[in-house]
Amino acid sequence: MTTVSGRRGRAARKRARTESRAAGTGAGAGIFRRRIPAYDMVTSAVLDAVHTQSMALLESIGIDFRDAPALSAWRDAGADVRAERVRIPEALLMELIALAPSQYVQQARNPARAVSVGGDNMVFSPVYGPPFVIGFDGVRRYAEMEDLEAFIKLAYLAPALNHSGGPICEPVDVPVAARHLEITFAHMRLSDMPFMGSVTAGERGLDCLEMCRILFGEEFVASNVVMTSLVNCNSPLVWDATMLESLRVYAEAGQAMIIAPFLMQGASTPSTMAAALAQNNAEALAAIAYAQLVRPGAPVVYGCSGTTVSMQSGAPMNASAEAQFLAYAGGALGRRYGLPTRLGGMRTSSPTPDAQAAYESSQSMLAAILAGGHFIVHSAGWLEGGLSACFGKFMMDTDQAIILQRLAGGFEANDECFAHDAFEEVGPGGQFFGCAHTQRHFEDIFFMPETSYFGTYEQWELEGQRDAATRARQLARNKLEGYDAPPMDSSVYEALADFVARRRRELGC
Amino acid sequence: MTTVSGRRGRAARKRARTESRAAGTGAGAGIFRRRIPAYDMVTSAVLDAVHTQSMALLESIGIDFRDAPALSAWRDAGADVRAERVRIPEALLMELIALAPSQYVQQARNPARAVSVGGDNMVFSPVYGPPFVIGFDGVRRYAEMEDLEAFIKLAYLAPALNHSGGPICEPVDVPVAARHLEITFAHMRLSDMPFMGSVTAGERGLDCLEMCRILFGEEFVASNVVMTSLVNCNSPLVWDATMLESLRVYAEAGQAMIIAPFLMQGASTPSTMAAALAQNNAEALAAIAYAQLVRPGAPVVYGCSGTTVSMQSGAPMNASAEAQFLAYAGGALGRRYGLPTRLGGMRTSSPTPDAQAAYESSQSMLAAILAGGHFIVHSAGWLEGGLSACFGKFMMDTDQAIILQRLAGGFEANDECFAHDAFEEVGPGGQFFGCAHTQRHFEDIFFMPETSYFGTYEQWELEGQRDAATRARQLARNKLEGYDAPPMDSSVYEALADFVARRRRELGC
Repeated sequence: MTTVSGRRGRAARKRARTESRAAGTGAGAGIFRRRIPAYDMVTSAVLDAVHTQSMALLESIGIDFRDAPALSAWRDAGADVRAERVRIPEALLMELIALAPSQYVQQARNPARAVSVGGDNMVFSPVYGPPFVIGFDGVRRYAEMEDLEAFIKLAYLAPALNHSGGPICEPVDVPVAARHLEITFAHMRLSDMPFMGSVTAGERGLDCLEMCRILFGEEFVASNVVMTSLVNCNSPLVWDATMLESLRVYAEAGQAMIIAPFLMQGASTPSTMAAALAQNNAEALAAIAYAQLVRPGAPVVYGCSGTTVSMQSGAPMNASAEAQFLAYAGGALGRRYGLPTRLGGMRTSSPTPDAQAAYESSQSMLAAILAGGHFIVHSAGWLEGGLSACFGKFMMDTDQAIILQRLAGGFEANDECFAHDAFEEVGPGGQFFGCAHTQRHFEDIFFMPETSYFGTYEQWELEGQRDAATRARQLARNKLEGYDAPPMDSSVYEALADFVARRRRELGC
Repeated sequence: MTTVSGRRGRAARKRARTESRAAGTGAGAGIFRRRIPAYDMVTSAVLDAVHTQSMALLESIGIDFRDAPALSAWRDAGADVRAERVRIPEALLMELIALAPSQYVQQARNPARAVSVGGDNMVFSPVYGPPFVIGFDGVRRYAEMEDLEAFIKLAYLAPALNHSGGPICEPVDVPVAARHLEITFAHMRLSDMPFMGSVTAGERGLDCLEMCRILFGEEFVASNVVMTSLVNCNSPLVWDATMLESLRVYAEAGQAMIIAPFLMQGASTPSTMAAALAQNNAEALAAIAYAQLVRPGAPVVYGCSGTTVSMQSGAPMNASAEAQFLAYAGGALGRRYGLPTRLGGMRTSSPTPDAQAAYESSQSMLAAILAGGHFIVHSAGWLEGGLSACFGKFMMDTDQAIILQRLAGGFEANDECFAHDAFEEVGPGGQFFGCAHTQRHFEDIFFMPETSYFGTYEQWELEGQRDAATRARQLARNKLEGYDAPPMDSSVYEALADFVARRRRELGC
């Protein structure tokens, strides 16, 4: 009943492969429109209180910007700056926030795969940053470049993803100083979707920009968003030099950023929900405002996601009621400020792609989508609190994401969908399988995840009692077999390869 | 890091056991209040259209009531009755629906465990009806009485459940004619929570009522709801004699019923969402109206849950976008008609407690809760499309349900929760673990599921790389060790045992 293996599946795959070879095998334009209202779980009175408290935090406690140019920009703007501590009056902050666009378009080298961030659009990108992978054999080990390439290919092939992300895993076999070059080159050549830039140093951001100029052309990059990169706050209430330098490089170039506080509720925030929310709001708004000081109108995404920390053991828990509530509140706050939001994703603490991983991932992902999130980082592959990227989970996550994307797409309620003719044809006690209405809709209804099993127990036993994770690992391998790179002009390819080689020489790595 | 095993956990369990022995070991009152708004995913225009179409179905196509007393009641009420086909005018239907209460209380033999069905209350009961179990060894086999007893005990011990349910699994070692007696007796003696009555024949419902009169007293039963039972429509648009007989027995006695169409979208309904919704609405409202003909004011619950059927293979899929949407629409329709609703549950098609089972269960359960559902049947243990009840999954489901119940409970946003003193104490760059505010809240924050793992990968390897399902099976065994039955007056116990023995003799089974 699963379509993972079997002769027919293989033949169909081969045919699809042949047909699409000319244009690569990517899943298509991947535009996900929300046609259901966002869920306003949090009352406006609570949102008011969160806003007021975060303004009080920024005005009275203040926030550290550990970077000289940022401090001087804040001083010039009229904030109260003492040493690294910046206290920002609400009026100044809100004036700057109002400059940020509520929506922007990130271009892709395949123009059909550009994504719009904000409004009723949703962007889904893979897990970001794990140093480990759980490979096709189910065994955990350090990630390598080959793994990153495999993930980029799988993301390119996944109908549920429309963004290639950044370091889907950290290629530890590449020297640190060269990683941003190799990661960016891999996204550029193996996929035609939008991607992220490096934030590990300002200089590396400049390299990513140079590579984009080769790929897209200098003029195009000057007037378009070609990267959305992820900058994290060093919570509580500290923006450090590395992140601010990256933020500045990208903002100056008009490139987009996800401004993401890093909440470990109970450790890097107070333990109570309201306080964590107010802190997240203060941290995100302060950096979004700074981006506007760097370049008014700089495109940004308001980040609101986090984990809770067990008070018993200190372990981070990725799927608490609090983590879900944070997403719902974050979505609502983003709407309040007119900013696109980054929420949740398929996140879990589980070390293995088991039931725990899936319960937690579903809950976190549903919160992100129902809350009205626009940019869902970590949409596939995340395990172990983000320490490992798992091929099996990647396939299951992207499968399940389609279900949630369909839900977010809503359902039609026109005359044809009410099927009055079917009821007349079939009547009480009948069945609808063969009726004319069902035949008319046969093709366009119901989605059957490839990693899920819907057959009988007996058949499942006969097929070897494989659980979903085992089937998914096999599916990942099968999919990779059918991968063909999207075509790239050879002069562009060579220019990029030359740039990477030259920079590696210059950097001595 | 898990609390499944380990010396401290065992000692604490033993202590808790000793302390609570006098009163049994049940989890407590188990009142779940929704303090977040229900998610109105479906627009009122769509709900209007669904209502209109379902009225058209009942007026023009009609619905079968395959039972003479029901047909004659409908005729007397002024419906258009031809053979078994009943066509019900909207005005008559809505007049009857208005008689049904929007909320009722189901009593329990422990008065503190009575549940309110409707309003902002939520009731959670275990899986209902599987003929198979997946035992403590992870192996699937036919269910027996001993399994049912174990499930009733685990439900009694589970903080996430406040209703004992009915046939959590079918005890196939008990003759069919005696099952309702043994199942009901087991719920009565092993738990002190509310439970369901049998619907397999009207006579069996009468036996359940007799047993309730022994347990609660005759007068009490005459003036209180002591059972909520589950009657299913034979979709499409057929109410059969067995269900109608049971419905009549319970309605006449003022006992509550969940009126649950049995939707297999694409097979027992047209394939389109809008049509399935209209059909569900027609089926549920018709039987709810009939219950009001039997006894005006009969307490009922509006059921709306279903599966979709793969058009490729005919297999039922429990966790589709459509199944989730059905819950959101059902919740909204129930509110529209002023009826409590029964939605979703931890449902899955997976044959094993793997990631698929958990993705699907989370999605289905979240839909039921966020949609504003009041009575969530199948809150724990369901596998394989309802064909098996799994001890491991039962434990995981009840654990995860607590997370969702906490989410539904909302969060406070008062001054103490905003923790301004913690920010003053800790400041930018600090950490909040040891601060006074965290100490004040140490006890009451964050829930750590017992079946989940939150430690390091290395520790997990050392502990034997057990997945969540394996840990959960072990936990179920441990919990059962600590079970003590809630005390029952010995004369009541004997009267019940005598009744069961006498009826089995009379029934020759």
